[in-house]
Amino acid sequence: MQIDAALDALSTVLGQRLSRSKSDLDLHGRSETWFPLSPPDAVAYPESTQEVSQIMKICAAHNVPVTGWGTGTSLEGQSLAVSGGVVVDFTRMNKLLAVHQGDMDAVVQPGLTREELNEELRATGLFFPVDPGANASLGGMASTRASGTTAVRYGTMRDNITGLEVVLSDGRIIRTGTRARKTSAGYDLTGLFVGAEGTLGLITELTLRLQGQPEATLAAICAFDTVDDAVRAVIDTIQMGLSMARIELLDTETAKAFNAYAGATMPESPHLMIEFHGSENGVKEMAETFGEIIADHNGHGFDWATRAEDRNALWTMRHNGAYAIFAARPGWKSLVTDVCVPISRLAEAVNDTAADLEQAGIYGPILGHVGDGNFHSVIMFDPDDPEQMKTVKAASERMVDRALAMGGTATGEHGIGMGKLGYMEKEHGDGWQVMGAIKQALDPENLLNPGKMVPPRN
Amino acid sequence: MQIDAALDALSTVLGQRLSRSKSDLDLHGRSETWFPLSPPDAVAYPESTQEVSQIMKICAAHNVPVTGWGTGTSLEGQSLAVSGGVVVDFTRMNKLLAVHQGDMDAVVQPGLTREELNEELRATGLFFPVDPGANASLGGMASTRASGTTAVRYGTMRDNITGLEVVLSDGRIIRTGTRARKTSAGYDLTGLFVGAEGTLGLITELTLRLQGQPEATLAAICAFDTVDDAVRAVIDTIQMGLSMARIELLDTETAKAFNAYAGATMPESPHLMIEFHGSENGVKEMAETFGEIIADHNGHGFDWATRAEDRNALWTMRHNGAYAIFAARPGWKSLVTDVCVPISRLAEAVNDTAADLEQAGIYGPILGHVGDGNFHSVIMFDPDDPEQMKTVKAASERMVDRALAMGGTATGEHGIGMGKLGYMEKEHGDGWQVMGAIKQALDPENLLNPGKMVPPRN
Ligand SMILES: Cc1cc2nc3c(=O)[nH]c(=O)nc-3n(C[C@H](O)[C@H](O)[C@H](O)COP(=O)(O)OP(=O)(O)OC[C@H]3O[C@@H](n4cnc5c(N)ncnc54)[C@H](O)[C@@H]3O)c2cc1C
Ligand SMILES: Cc1cc2nc3c(=O)[nH]c(=O)nc-3n(C[C@H](O)[C@H](O)[C@H](O)COP(=O)(O)OP(=O)(O)OC[C@H]3O[C@@H](n4cnc5c(N)ncnc54)[C@H](O)[C@@H]3O)c2cc1C
Repeated sequence: MQIDAALDALSTVLGQRLSRSKSDLDLHGRSETWFPLSPPDAVAYPESTQEVSQIMKICAAHNVPVTGWGTGTSLEGQSLAVSGGVVVDFTRMNKLLAVHQGDMDAVVQPGLTREELNEELRATGLFFPVDPGANASLGGMASTRASGTTAVRYGTMRDNITGLEVVLSDGRIIRTGTRARKTSAGYDLTGLFVGAEGTLGLITELTLRLQGQPEATLAAICAFDTVDDAVRAVIDTIQMGLSMARIELLDTETAKAFNAYAGATMPESPHLMIEFHGSENGVKEMAETFGEIIADHNGHGFDWATRAEDRNALWTMRHNGAYAIFAARPGWKSLVTDVCVPISRLAEAVNDTAADLEQAGIYGPILGHVGDGNFHSVIMFDPDDPEQMKTVKAASERMVDRALAMGGTATGEHGIGMGKLGYMEKEHGDGWQVMGAIKQALDPENLLNPGKMVPPRN
Repeated sequence: MQIDAALDALSTVLGQRLSRSKSDLDLHGRSETWFPLSPPDAVAYPESTQEVSQIMKICAAHNVPVTGWGTGTSLEGQSLAVSGGVVVDFTRMNKLLAVHQGDMDAVVQPGLTREELNEELRATGLFFPVDPGANASLGGMASTRASGTTAVRYGTMRDNITGLEVVLSDGRIIRTGTRARKTSAGYDLTGLFVGAEGTLGLITELTLRLQGQPEATLAAICAFDTVDDAVRAVIDTIQMGLSMARIELLDTETAKAFNAYAGATMPESPHLMIEFHGSENGVKEMAETFGEIIADHNGHGFDWATRAEDRNALWTMRHNGAYAIFAARPGWKSLVTDVCVPISRLAEAVNDTAADLEQAGIYGPILGHVGDGNFHSVIMFDPDDPEQMKTVKAASERMVDRALAMGGTATGEHGIGMGKLGYMEKEHGDGWQVMGAIKQALDPENLLNPGKMVPPRN
């Protein structure tokens, strides 16, 4: 790595938009969770695809690693430049380039956040459904294959992108996909870059599918005596074919954290939060059926939020879930882990995890997008207690092992980063080597977010 | 290629299940459309993944090309072994291995056809929605990224597979994906093999998402004065957010062919065929709204098929569309082409294509899955008239060029094979080179369906 020569050349292109200030390096060296500070050598703020391509060419010429950065909210240390080099921060590439109302798609730059996009779409009657809670950038969301509360109805980032513009490791710019809603023209490159965590290329533009704002929306929260009751209600709901827009589980500890953080007055027991989208009659019909299902599982305290304010309050509380739990242990660090299992194993997976955490004496509230079989534990630990850290890591490892043993995956939506790299071989076997071969083909010099995702090179 | 040594070794493994009979070679050397006969050197009928792996290892050792074969219904010559070698016919790997009712998924071997699968699922209340009309194999459908009439509601093969077992070019066996409904664990290998037309590996098992059989189904056909009216009705339907399970366009020539072939008595004008899935009330509500939309576009002769027999008759007629058109020109050959454009350009694309074909004096009825912006022309020509063949090819090229110019794709669902290879560079630019790099990484000896999909090697 010839970092000084690279930075000189980059300065010429970017001027003040190449930053080496300590505060900026530290800001881009931190993550939302427990990973140690890992500042890059510099942060670049490009304003165009051409500039990204130039940055990439310069870094390639000087063998300098390049790591993309959206809003840095990823939970597994994805955006940390663990081998140093340049972080490319997409904050200044945050334009909504086009909305095609008739085609229900939008073309955006990667730095635009999902809340900004939906704000801009408000008057169009359309919205972008993928909702990971955090106000993440769309480029970052694509790169982690994010999903969140609405995936049960609208799918994940994998399902909501029809095309990308990508800068490759040698600076070439390609377009994947088109504005057509489907295609059989060749390998699915769009799908390959989605979820690649910036290890195969830098996304400089996205074409996103939009949805029509539903005629009617109905949300509710209701309490259950046990997590088991709540999860079994979810399974029944899915098997009845009820089309939920959101269905979220909170366990008792999460309810307590909400009460403390958001001044909620929930019973201290497990809850489901649910939302339906459809026609006026449609959502009523669904709500009735859902009411019958939860009655079968001892659901109670059913509270419908029909007004937009009440719904927003409900989902804001949910979206602050992780922060509420962080706040419950001031000064501690978090290890936020997510797994996804076949729906039929969900009750078992959640119960076993809860029991395991309890037995290990760990504070790790569980919450999740249970309509997909996906759940998280926000595990807190005292960073000054190395024993506790070990206990916590071992428990999170058992959580993944259980998910894999049930035919599930090590991560439903948070991705690999540094935290889950150790499970790749276990989950994929020789498939992991195939990923390595693809990485080698597209990034032969291992410049893009090195140290992540694929097997180490010999 | 040391074909004799390879065939000797294969015989030892497969015995009678390695066929070199002329009839078998010819059968596997033909396609549904105009491509010249291209018989392989041998046809292998494996019965297990292990056998597929052995076949692949033997062929790799002797540098013999290997081409997968499902039911041979692909329309662009995908399954033709244009460089000779061994065709692997998956007919004997046609088991439904498991149905997980609670998880709404099924594990199948690649040779199982979609009709066989749905027959076996009938009692479960579940079904597999992807419907390309032809009774294709699920491995073939995955490999062409097939879709068909129901993609507008349920998505394409890309959206309905959670995992694959694949034999790589060196005989290694990998699993991609899990039984979880979503994952962020690494590169999307499942998505990479889907649509790869057997150029990256042989699919030996698929895990498929199933859907609940809808409580109520309502289908209808209605006539329009012009294709333009029909397409504009489709656009309005989509923009109203009506959730159609199917919406199909037939032009006047197709209606004529249906009348002649299936003894139908349709008015000789453009038609839409539509289907709704939902609750009893839901489908009624949708039908009413749809009735209002088509009234705005001079739709008439609206005929609802509520009984299952009537619906089946309707869709059987549609599924025989290509055969009805083939029958209209006995002794002629067909060039079946498909493109997909952004919905907003659909009316223009269909109109321009129809006008172009008419002006060129070509018989090429148009029909399509217009809810996705996808339409086909089944172009007929006299194989003994080389001038006509030239005219036909030029017209189909203009059809693709128009689609690309509108932000669409050269193929919405039929795939690349031999017929569309010439458009890959135009559609993908440098992205096509990236596909070549991936092919090189996964199949360095170019053994799997060589001559297809990627740029020729130097
Ligand atoms: C409170 C909280 C709740 C969350 N809830 C969810 C949830 O419900 N569901 C969910 O899926 N996630 C969730 N997350 C995780 C996080 O929001 C997602 O991972 C998000 O997708 C990250 O987006 P970002 O813009 O912050 O990306 P970053 O963290 O900046 O980057 C993520 C990865 O993408 C790469 N990258 C960024 N931009 C580009 C680009 N343009 N081109 C190529 N690579 C790029 C980075 O190098 C890195 O590898 C949550 C996070 C928090 C803090
Ligand atoms: C009348 C008619 C109507 C049609 N309508 C539609 C439609 O509406 N929508 C649509 O999408 N298609 C349609 N098609 C095209 C066709 O049905 C699809 O392309 C189908 O997916 C092909 O499946 P198959 O089993 O016949 O595959 P094949 O034709 O046998 O093979 C297709 C490709 O897949 C490869 N392959 C096959 N099996 C495997 C395997 N196990 N592993 C790896 N590679 C494999 C082959 O090498 C080849 O490249 C239609 C075809 C006909 C004849």
